[in-house]
Parts: sequence; C-alpha cells; structure tokens
Amino acid sequence: MRPYVRKVQYYETDKMGVTHHANYIHWMEEARIDFMEQLGFPYERMEAEGVYSPVRSLNCEYRRPCTFGDTVTVYVSTEEVRGAKLTIRYEMKNAEGELLCTARSEHAFLDREGRIVRIKRELPAFCAALERAAKEGADG
Amino acid sequence: MRPYVRKVQYYETDKMGVTHHANYIHWMEEARIDFMEQLGFPYERMEAEGVYSPVRSLNCEYRRPCTFGDTVTVYVSTEEVRGAKLTIRYEMKNAEGELLCTARSEHAFLDREGRIVRIKRELPAFCAALERAAKEGADG
Amino acid sequence: MRPYVRKVQYYETDKMGVTHHANYIHWMEEARIDFMEQLGFPYERMEAEGVYSPVRSLNCEYRRPCTFGDTVTVYVSTEEVRGAKLTIRYEMKNAEGELLCTARSEHAFLDREGRIVRIKRELPAFCAALERAAKEGADG
Amino acid sequence: MRPYVRKVQYYETDKMGVTHHANYIHWMEEARIDFMEQLGFPYERMEAEGVYSPVRSLNCEYRRPCTFGDTVTVYVSTEEVRGAKLTIRYEMKNAEGELLCTARSEHAFLDREGRIVRIKRELPAFCAALERAAKEGADG
Repeated sequence: MRPYVRKVQYYETDKMGVTHHANYIHWMEEARIDFMEQLGFPYERMEAEGVYSPVRSLNCEYRRPCTFGDTVTVYVSTEEVRGAKLTIRYEMKNAEGELLCTARSEHAFLDREGRIVRIKRELPAFCAALERAAKEGADG
Repeated sequence: MRPYVRKVQYYETDKMGVTHHANYIHWMEEARIDFMEQLGFPYERMEAEGVYSPVRSLNCEYRRPCTFGDTVTVYVSTEEVRGAKLTIRYEMKNAEGELLCTARSEHAFLDREGRIVRIKRELPAFCAALERAAKEGADG
Repeated sequence: MRPYVRKVQYYETDKMGVTHHANYIHWMEEARIDFMEQLGFPYERMEAEGVYSPVRSLNCEYRRPCTFGDTVTVYVSTEEVRGAKLTIRYEMKNAEGELLCTARSEHAFLDREGRIVRIKRELPAFCAALERAAKEGADG
Repeated sequence: MRPYVRKVQYYETDKMGVTHHANYIHWMEEARIDFMEQLGFPYERMEAEGVYSPVRSLNCEYRRPCTFGDTVTVYVSTEEVRGAKLTIRYEMKNAEGELLCTARSEHAFLDREGRIVRIKRELPAFCAALERAAKEGADG
C-alpha cells in the first residue's frame, strides 16, 4: 500500500505559525479514504450500497509541529477488525522522516436503518482485503 | 433585528496572525441562519419541510483584519427578493465599530426534487417576514 | 464555572447528515478558551505575555450524533496539572442532557523561545485558579 | 501551466449531500499556491523574504454542485496586475468537464511593516513570470 502524501495548506495553519491540531483529523480521514480506495473498497461505493461508517473514537499524539509548505506522509494500517468495529492506526512523518503525529481511530459500520453491520460476517470481501493489507504491511 | 455577535476563534486564525479569509463565509452563514430564526423561519424547519437553499454566488470585500479574541458583529439585511433568488447583504464590524468586511450572497430555493421554488408565490409568509425586516431596517 | 453552549452550524455537518467528527475538536478549543477566560486567564493575554500552549494529545469518544440546529453544552474540567502538562476533560451534552461526546486534551506550555514553562512554578496564579475551579467542580 | 487537481473530501460535504460552498475558497487558495509554485515563486519563499499577501476581495459563482469522491480541476489565470493589486481568476470543472464554479480573488502585497509593496516596481521577476504565464495561457 502506498502511503498518503499531502502538502500542508496555508488555511490549515494558525497564529502560532504551525498546523492547527484539528486538521490532523482531516488528514486521517483523507488517508483512510485513500487506503480504502487502494484496497478496492472506495468509501463512496460503500455508502452507495447503504453502509455508513461513523467514527466511534479517535486519539492523536502530537510529537512535532509542521507548517505551510511542508509535505506530510501518512502511513495507514489496520490494527484490529472485531465484530462491528474497525481500528485504524496512522503515523504521520515530514519530508525528513521525522514523526509528527501518531493516531488511532475506531469505526462502526451501520446500514441505512442505523443497524450495526458485523464486518466479518456481512462484509467478508472487505475484511479479506483488510487482512491482506495487514499481512503485506507486516511482511513489507 | 439583533445583529449577530461572535468571537473569533483560535482555529480561525492563520500564520499571518489574523482570521483566515475563508472563515468570513462561515460567519455569513451563521448570521444568515440567526437572521432567519429571528424572522420566525428557522432554516432547519424550512429543510424539514423540504425546501433547500443552495448558495448561488457570494462576494466579500475585506477591509480590515481581525484576530483571535476579537468580537465581530455581523449586520444582515435583505437586498432583494426576486423570483427564485434572495440576495442578502452583510456588514461586519469589530468592537470599535470599524468596518471589517462587507459581503453579499445570493440564494436559490429548491424543493426535494431539485425544482426551483418561487419565493413570493410559494413561500409568501417567509417573503412577508423578509419585507417587514427590510422595512424595519430602513426605518430603524 | 458556566459550561460552554453553542449551536451546531450547517457548515459543520457532513453528507451523513450529522456533525462531522473533526468539529468536536474545535468545540473543545472554544470551550477551553471560554474556561480560561472565566478563570481570569484569557488565552490571548497569556499569548501576549509570551506563553504558548500547544496541544500534546487529544482523544474523543463519540457516543451519539448531533446535527445542525442542535444546541451542545460543553462541560470543562481540569483533570491534572503536573510539571509542564495540563490535562483537561470535556463532556458534551445535547439539550435533552444526553451525552454526545467525552474527550480529553493535554497541553504543554512554552515560552517564546520554545522552552518548557513549568506551570506550578512559573504560572502559580493560573495554577491556583485551576485548583479553585477543580475544587468548586468537586463541591458543586 | 498545469491546472490544479484535487478530490472532494468527505469533511467538505454538508448535510445537503454536496460540497459546502465555503470550501471552494480553500480550493482557490490551494490552486493559487500551486500556480505560484509553478511560476517559480512559491508563496512560502515570498513570506520568508518578508512579503505577505492578504486577500482583498473575492467572489464565487456556483454553477453546479459536486460531492465526495468527485475530482475537481481548477484552472488559474492572472486577470490583472496593477500597482499593488493582483487579480486572479479561477474556473473549476468536474471530471466530465462541466463548469462547477467561476471565481476571482484580489490580493495586496505588504512588507513586514504592513507597507504596500508595488508589484511591478518591487517584485519585477514575479511580475514577469505572471506575464509569461498569462501569455502562455492566451496562446495555449
């Protein structure tokens, strides 16, 4: 899997002169959606088929600031797939390879009526793709 | 009509040390929604009844910067109601009464099927409320 | 201490029809800054005196969605003041008193040169105010 | 000059199911900064040399909505360079080549003390690059 790369935008900085911390949550989403697309399960298709995936929790550890013009690389990996919950991990690095932020997000899966979708049982192909990516990451 | 008052947030500043210009578009929306609520036509109710109101155009003239901790007052007025288009004007001032920004937005009204809703004919009570507010503004 | 109250804005929703999860990070900041102002230590004054306070980490547990037009009340409390780190907790509730989100953020304090500021030693008045608020919360 | 291409993010949509209008202002900035980089005058370098460029005004005409997963191409061109003001135009199209939005922004140039920088006189190399790009656009 290719990591997700993006430049820090001017509108993402704040008056401290660095990226405002809330924007890392956007980058996590961008990287996660890119990851799902690389897996062959683009989130727009999942939604079109009636599966929604709200965020259940997230945490971020900010290690080092970055600012406008910096290039950030986000490494995404699956931490756990269990029942109706998917846990994803993120490492963000700058162009020098220095760690900027580590983060984690938990996701539920719901159908159009808001009922929980059990990933392994009801989305087996997605689940298999997540496992292949995890294996590839462990081997790579 | 009471003007809309809000403080500039830290996350709305950028590395130039002032409010990033895109945030004024958010303030226009906040002030417009507050204005509709004061008119007795809260936008959430309008949407619940199946009327959507996309923005057709907007412009902003930035006169003077503001920053974190400043209090901004947004004065909203109706400029024109015509056919399916509502034009709204905004003046934003700081606590010293200095002009920060003048702006204008144009809004269409659509039903659930995306068909144009003619304001005067199909939303006469809303239209009458807009006219009362305009008259009150002119008199006030 | 008064909790922080604010309405969910239209621009804070996403195509799932609810508040996008990244916006809760903004609300945490708004509530924290209001809390500091109530303590008598407005963050803009702290910055003016050369003390910066970057976010070191944060986590959010999303319990229940909210959407445009909802009123969210954010209860802020100090969890820990230790060395150079302040930990703050947040509870967000809707108008029915239902829990929407619990969150926590950790903050460092730095001077203009980026050196760590030890809160208890170098900002004793701020520290005392945090302790009074914590005591009041525990008693209240 | 290559146009600027980017995908619409989930967090940029609103409960109407389409991109919230304020985000187009971000895209204008992203495309403008990419344009300056292609010209050989990256904005981060300009700022590092003490030239700041606040937005003086902007306008957007929204023609057609777009949403999460869509690819938007932004075509940037210089409309006018005069005294201390640069006017830039934007056309945004979807993958089918349909026009989503036309926009314009005006920019001032200031030095560290907030004094106006006359573009033609004080930034002649930047000005020449803008003219070359304009000529290339007209010829291309």
